[in-house]
Amino acid sequence: MASVLPLLYVAWADGFLTPAEIAAARDRLAGEAWMTDADRQQVAAWLDPDSPPDATTYFGWVRTIRRAARHVPDLAEKSLADLGVDLAALVGAGDGAGLAPEAARALREVEDMLGVVGPEVLRDLVEDRPEAEPVGIPRPAFDVAAVQALLDGRYAETKDRVRDLLSDPFFAYPEPSISNEAYRDVVLSWTQKLADEGLGAVAYPTWAGGDGDIAKFIAVFEILATHDLSLVVKYGVQFGLWGGSVNALGSDDQRRELLPQIGSLEMPGAFAMTERGHGSNVRDLNTTATYDRDAEEWVIRTPSDHDHKEWIGNAAAHGQMATVFAQLEIDGEGYGVHAFVVPIRDASGEPMPGVRIDDSGHKMGLNGVDNGQLWFDDVRVPRTALLSRYAEVSAEGTYESPIPSAGKRFFTMLGTLVGGRIAVGTAANSAAKAGLTVAVRYGDRRRQFGPAGGPEVAILDYLSHQRRLLPLVATSYGLTFALARLAEDFAALEMGGDTREIEGRAAALKSMASWHATRTLQEAREACGGEGFRWSARIAHRKADSDIFTTFEGDNTVLQLQVAKGLLAGYRQEFSDLNAWGLVRYLREQAAVRIGEINPLTRRNTDRDHLLDPAWHRDLFERRERMLLVQVAARLKGRLDAGVDSFEAFVEVQDHLLTLASANAERLVLEAFQDAVEAVEDGQIKTLLGLVCALYALEHLEQDRGWFLEQNLIDAPVSKAIRTEVNRLLHRLRPVAVELVDAFGIPDEVLGSEIGSGRLPLDP
Amino acid sequence: MASVLPLLYVAWADGFLTPAEIAAARDRLAGEAWMTDADRQQVAAWLDPDSPPDATTYFGWVRTIRRAARHVPDLAEKSLADLGVDLAALVGAGDGAGLAPEAARALREVEDMLGVVGPEVLRDLVEDRPEAEPVGIPRPAFDVAAVQALLDGRYAETKDRVRDLLSDPFFAYPEPSISNEAYRDVVLSWTQKLADEGLGAVAYPTWAGGDGDIAKFIAVFEILATHDLSLVVKYGVQFGLWGGSVNALGSDDQRRELLPQIGSLEMPGAFAMTERGHGSNVRDLNTTATYDRDAEEWVIRTPSDHDHKEWIGNAAAHGQMATVFAQLEIDGEGYGVHAFVVPIRDASGEPMPGVRIDDSGHKMGLNGVDNGQLWFDDVRVPRTALLSRYAEVSAEGTYESPIPSAGKRFFTMLGTLVGGRIAVGTAANSAAKAGLTVAVRYGDRRRQFGPAGGPEVAILDYLSHQRRLLPLVATSYGLTFALARLAEDFAALEMGGDTREIEGRAAALKSMASWHATRTLQEAREACGGEGFRWSARIAHRKADSDIFTTFEGDNTVLQLQVAKGLLAGYRQEFSDLNAWGLVRYLREQAAVRIGEINPLTRRNTDRDHLLDPAWHRDLFERRERMLLVQVAARLKGRLDAGVDSFEAFVEVQDHLLTLASANAERLVLEAFQDAVEAVEDGQIKTLLGLVCALYALEHLEQDRGWFLEQNLIDAPVSKAIRTEVNRLLHRLRPVAVELVDAFGIPDEVLGSEIGSGRLPLDP
Repeated sequence: MASVLPLLYVAWADGFLTPAEIAAARDRLAGEAWMTDADRQQVAAWLDPDSPPDATTYFGWVRTIRRAARHVPDLAEKSLADLGVDLAALVGAGDGAGLAPEAARALREVEDMLGVVGPEVLRDLVEDRPEAEPVGIPRPAFDVAAVQALLDGRYAETKDRVRDLLSDPFFAYPEPSISNEAYRDVVLSWTQKLADEGLGAVAYPTWAGGDGDIAKFIAVFEILATHDLSLVVKYGVQFGLWGGSVNALGSDDQRRELLPQIGSLEMPGAFAMTERGHGSNVRDLNTTATYDRDAEEWVIRTPSDHDHKEWIGNAAAHGQMATVFAQLEIDGEGYGVHAFVVPIRDASGEPMPGVRIDDSGHKMGLNGVDNGQLWFDDVRVPRTALLSRYAEVSAEGTYESPIPSAGKRFFTMLGTLVGGRIAVGTAANSAAKAGLTVAVRYGDRRRQFGPAGGPEVAILDYLSHQRRLLPLVATSYGLTFALARLAEDFAALEMGGDTREIEGRAAALKSMASWHATRTLQEAREACGGEGFRWSARIAHRKADSDIFTTFEGDNTVLQLQVAKGLLAGYRQEFSDLNAWGLVRYLREQAAVRIGEINPLTRRNTDRDHLLDPAWHRDLFERRERMLLVQVAARLKGRLDAGVDSFEAFVEVQDHLLTLASANAERLVLEAFQDAVEAVEDGQIKTLLGLVCALYALEHLEQDRGWFLEQNLIDAPVSKAIRTEVNRLLHRLRPVAVELVDAFGIPDEVLGSEIGSGRLPLDP
Repeated sequence: MASVLPLLYVAWADGFLTPAEIAAARDRLAGEAWMTDADRQQVAAWLDPDSPPDATTYFGWVRTIRRAARHVPDLAEKSLADLGVDLAALVGAGDGAGLAPEAARALREVEDMLGVVGPEVLRDLVEDRPEAEPVGIPRPAFDVAAVQALLDGRYAETKDRVRDLLSDPFFAYPEPSISNEAYRDVVLSWTQKLADEGLGAVAYPTWAGGDGDIAKFIAVFEILATHDLSLVVKYGVQFGLWGGSVNALGSDDQRRELLPQIGSLEMPGAFAMTERGHGSNVRDLNTTATYDRDAEEWVIRTPSDHDHKEWIGNAAAHGQMATVFAQLEIDGEGYGVHAFVVPIRDASGEPMPGVRIDDSGHKMGLNGVDNGQLWFDDVRVPRTALLSRYAEVSAEGTYESPIPSAGKRFFTMLGTLVGGRIAVGTAANSAAKAGLTVAVRYGDRRRQFGPAGGPEVAILDYLSHQRRLLPLVATSYGLTFALARLAEDFAALEMGGDTREIEGRAAALKSMASWHATRTLQEAREACGGEGFRWSARIAHRKADSDIFTTFEGDNTVLQLQVAKGLLAGYRQEFSDLNAWGLVRYLREQAAVRIGEINPLTRRNTDRDHLLDPAWHRDLFERRERMLLVQVAARLKGRLDAGVDSFEAFVEVQDHLLTLASANAERLVLEAFQDAVEAVEDGQIKTLLGLVCALYALEHLEQDRGWFLEQNLIDAPVSKAIRTEVNRLLHRLRPVAVELVDAFGIPDEVLGSEIGSGRLPLDP
């Protein structure tokens, strides 16, 4: 009987066999002459699909197999029939010479008939799942510090200084139960500390306590954004928007008067542009600033109750001054939107006469920032309150500006503020990196399920988990390089230089980075399961706070439409202008561009060397962008030639415009990433970063393979080969996944995540 | 001179012309004999790219054009040259006979050279943007009540009753600043109200105060989930998990004793399955229940500090009892995981002896639910505490069960609890519908930008905005039908019937619905811009609360892997078992399935009738699922034949398994949606719902067009035509978008969203 036990076990184990299969096994064994009649009857009874053995009997078999298995060598290689033979030999010493050859053959036939993988069944049954090795998994050599140095770039020293500062207990996160009022005060005290450390003024001239280096300001921003995002927004409002508007739009006198007090936070201020009814379309905002010639004053007015300034950071609690954007009017004539410095609170914190302030209320996140609403009821400020770099009004009310058109003037002013948009993109990527640091470390520690008889497996060893996280790590690497390049190019512009191309890149990368952050923090939360839902994992906090990054400093969709229009015009138009009629005349030339066919051999080439070739990746990314540009120009032109209004024509092709803008951003990132890899000197690091870059490229090609197939740029076998190659890259990068996020360089104190700490032991 | 003004204006307007183009215009006009020398010199000076006119001069032109334009008929049709001619005639009465023909010709040539769309330039310049019509946009006939009745289905009456109940001020949302403790008490009081109204027991037998109708329970759940999600989770924990486990796993005596007290909330309880180290892999959990024969008691033990029960709803504050899942052991032998009823608190709220309770802490959302941690230090409960529908132990310690294998027994028990998973999927869809109701109504009201000279346009009139929201509306419709069908099929099962196919559908649809909710609430937040970030929009609240729906009641990725394995086995295996070796023998038969080629004509057919043909949609969805199944079976078989361990083989094809599971869910939704459309009698509604269903089908085909192209199921022109057809459907459905979400039937009080109210006037 012992020989049949493994088959009896498998017949009833875990619903493995269907009733019909159990009956077939019974029928097959019913005719076996090597069993005694009694045994045959017993086996037939135990294999009756309508009458399962009782639990005690079944468990008896399990116990017998388990005990006997201790004496069976090489158990993990055995079939059920093999084991049956061994069991018969062990148990059946009294039966004589063990099992007849025909019996062994019969058992094997039944096993085959049932399609069983015997060894795995036995391993699962016999071996208790061992505990996983607690530590010491061998990892490839990986110089985390060297990779971090590459990511940190030229501002490594500044970044380390900010990391050290934020690691101080002074910057410890408050409890989640903190009230909004108390949270705002904490954030204000943090911001004051940064100002005291000289980090507020870095973008301002040296005479204002700064370094005159906007790229360094963005580097500070980058590291701050690995910590509490209310802090980074408060810092950005005070030093970037309020101070930045004075620095970029003010006359030298105005800058000398205000910037030192702004950089030190003696004069907290706000940036009052957005209105309730005008968020994206700020050119049409409704607040007015009317010149009163007799008093030599501006009269600031909110024309109706719902035209108030909205979401203004620093307005609800702490701000004393504000840059207010309003339609400048003299003698009933409008000159477009201008910026005015307007006191909103006195030193005691009371609103100034005529200024009404309300709180924007509880938000999804960023509740440490005091966003507020402002109404101006004929508030009077002196003539010199107009920030007068781009426009001046004489005492007599004569308007003067080097830029005649109101629209062009406004968009030129906006262009000078593009640093804020680069900073927000950079901050979004920092938030994504923090989420990835938590999720990758957790995935490396958390074990669940495993092979038959083996220990449970780290969830990051699952392809599904690698697919969810590692391509996002690669994208964060690429965005780091692309955003750093952008910040440095912006900083290198002459004061007053042409910002249009920079604005285009900033809009493209801000959109990509902020959507990347939203998606990545979502994946990180899910990848950590219930643990990711816990506040102490500090993923939720970052998700809620950064959610608005896709909206503020320019709604991503609006920005993408601007990017696409900028590309159509070759950045020869003011960047932020969405007027369609200004673009029409570029369509002809764009639509006429001819793009060479791709080599048919390239289209079909599935060699691995080819699939990993950076030049091929670059060609596809560039080609996609050019082709989308040409196609959308042709579609627009066709509509306009048919007499469609240009506004309507642009609406009808919005899906194409958005696709073009995404392709542009992805190409910018690929270029910066490839150039960064190219510049690495250390061979091992170059190889490794090259793989990360290839993962970025191939995973994005895989995502958009529908388009590449449609356009006949790749053939179906290449498309499938790309997916396989992505899986291979994930497999190669898995062993260094933790090191890849360690190189983001986020100290444990700043990460603030219980499950994401770099110092934790393995998951129990 | 007047004739040249429109050209001068456009030369300097908004950076429209480049310096080179301005110079070209100057040079072209320099040779015109119809101008006086003085005029030529003046024009040349004004068109000097290095020396723009001053702002006052420029504004003088603008004023002149605007004033003169009042006297020009059909201005909106004029070119700049036409207007120049008119201006010359108006202003130049003193000059004689107006403008010479050669002058008009020259102006036209310059205009052409610059590529200007004259009429739009002029409309933009001359016409002040009018206010949008406040109300009264004509909409197609749409019987909201009739469509809502279709969505509500057979439980419409129950749903209306719950809607009315939730609209009562008693269910008003608390302030966001509420403490977790107070929030939990509010949610408890709400839950008590539901119990008092008889809504707790609906799934229980009539003798327990119920209707014995699990589908009705899910219908209640559906409407509750349009309100606060802490409430729905609390309700689900008490009546679905705690009560549901007693109902499904208890003996008749146990059910008669406990269910009446559970349904009335006299006996609040918990469902203690998940452990810190075992979330997905619950079969391997570590809590033990050892039989003490002498005392006739079970001894419940948490073996180590990190093996505690985690995330247990109702545990931290309110629960008095718990269904505790533990490894049953008798005499050192293990019989697998079983469920025991264990008191955790006494009537005064103190933990029972040996029970340690801690709070799971602050969470991303659902802070109105008291999730807790439980440790059992040799807690003793009587022998009869074992829920004994599937297993009993006699006083002497003899174990008896109708299902011999421990694994099969456990998965059979799990199968009876599948109602919870259907309820969670349904609740996720409700949360998505609430987000869509807010976002679609807001998009219909909020205006931003617009055509030259026209009013600002509702953002939902933009294709980009339609693309972001309306396909999600279509998916919510489809999920409603598919989930209702699933709930009714489950309710129709005999007690003890085979749940495996239902479990497969539940897992597929729970994953799809919860990811749909996560994505939809994200889109809704972004689509409402800053307003969506405001707490009072009540999108953030729903997003944070529902985020965990992708994780609890089965992690979506794990569920999808189970779905794929269920499909590979044709649901002949226990559903939740992820043991790979049990599946191997089905691979041969799956891999051998032959799927007919698609007709080449069909593959290329871009006719609109064809693109909208439901039969074609169904064929593609079904074909995709079958092909993915056959392909993944073949890939697995190849690996196993090559000697790869089955666990590893399954890991290597996880990406395919997940794709298969998604394809399965999408097909289930399409089928239910199409069948629902088919069943509609009213012709107008049938047509309309047919369009929504086509949008669901085509947008999903578009998303996955890479796969369909790779497999040669569609040709590139069809792929492109699908995108065009999606745009057309969006255009057709836009006018009824608000009615489509109105038909979700969420009362304003329940929606609780300031910007999403159905009663609001248009956006100011």
